[in-house]
Amino acid sequence: MQGCDNDLCQKIGEGFVQVYYNQFDNTNRMELVNLYAEGATLTWEGMVFHGRQAIAGKLTGMPFQQIKHIITDQDVQPTVDNSILIMVFGQLKTDNDPPMAFHQVFMLKAQNCNWVCTNDVFRLGIHNIPVES
Amino acid sequence: MQGCDNDLCQKIGEGFVQVYYNQFDNTNRMELVNLYAEGATLTWEGMVFHGRQAIAGKLTGMPFQQIKHIITDQDVQPTVDNSILIMVFGQLKTDNDPPMAFHQVFMLKAQNCNWVCTNDVFRLGIHNIPVES
Repeated sequence: MQGCDNDLCQKIGEGFVQVYYNQFDNTNRMELVNLYAEGATLTWEGMVFHGRQAIAGKLTGMPFQQIKHIITDQDVQPTVDNSILIMVFGQLKTDNDPPMAFHQVFMLKAQNCNWVCTNDVFRLGIHNIPVES
Repeated sequence: MQGCDNDLCQKIGEGFVQVYYNQFDNTNRMELVNLYAEGATLTWEGMVFHGRQAIAGKLTGMPFQQIKHIITDQDVQPTVDNSILIMVFGQLKTDNDPPMAFHQVFMLKAQNCNWVCTNDVFRLGIHNIPVES
């Protein structure tokens, strides 16, 4: 049922994660959009951005100067449609703000001999409802 | 590029999340496996379970009597392959343990007129690396 060898998917997924956050933290964030498919969808804290232009606008318009991501976990699975599903959990720190937890999901698909992101969902790890312990 | 109407996907995704956690919390967890495709993959805290039998074994063998999930966020996206991607963020509480954050990703696909889960990735929200603030 799997469309992609597990070990290969793992390597492609981990490679994508490394490149993505390295570009996010260390280089011009405008380059990040090259990792997305033309018709990709990004849901960022519940706001939806369709297509590379909208995604580029969101990623480069964020109100901080510096950011650093530290990855805690990354889980990679092949899908039945020859895509690769990645779930990332980590912490990020912007400028002089305290560190925050985040989780992010990517779906990758091979297009024109490249693996590109078709789906991206990002959330900060902030709960709105305290649970009684 | 999208294979499924956004509003419809949203409803299907939210419906799945409601059914999944309701069954998890309130009914026999053995029934949960009926929500998975035959060849589904579950990655639970980094451990991989392939196929319904392995998934059923994992889901029903967990060492607690009671569990309650509270959903903070659920993001739903259609994919280019007519699947539905769901990212859930919330808190869970087992027996008398303190509440813990979790995040979980589901990929749904229509098979035999039903939407079933082909991919599931679960993680508790526990960081192993403190980040200096």
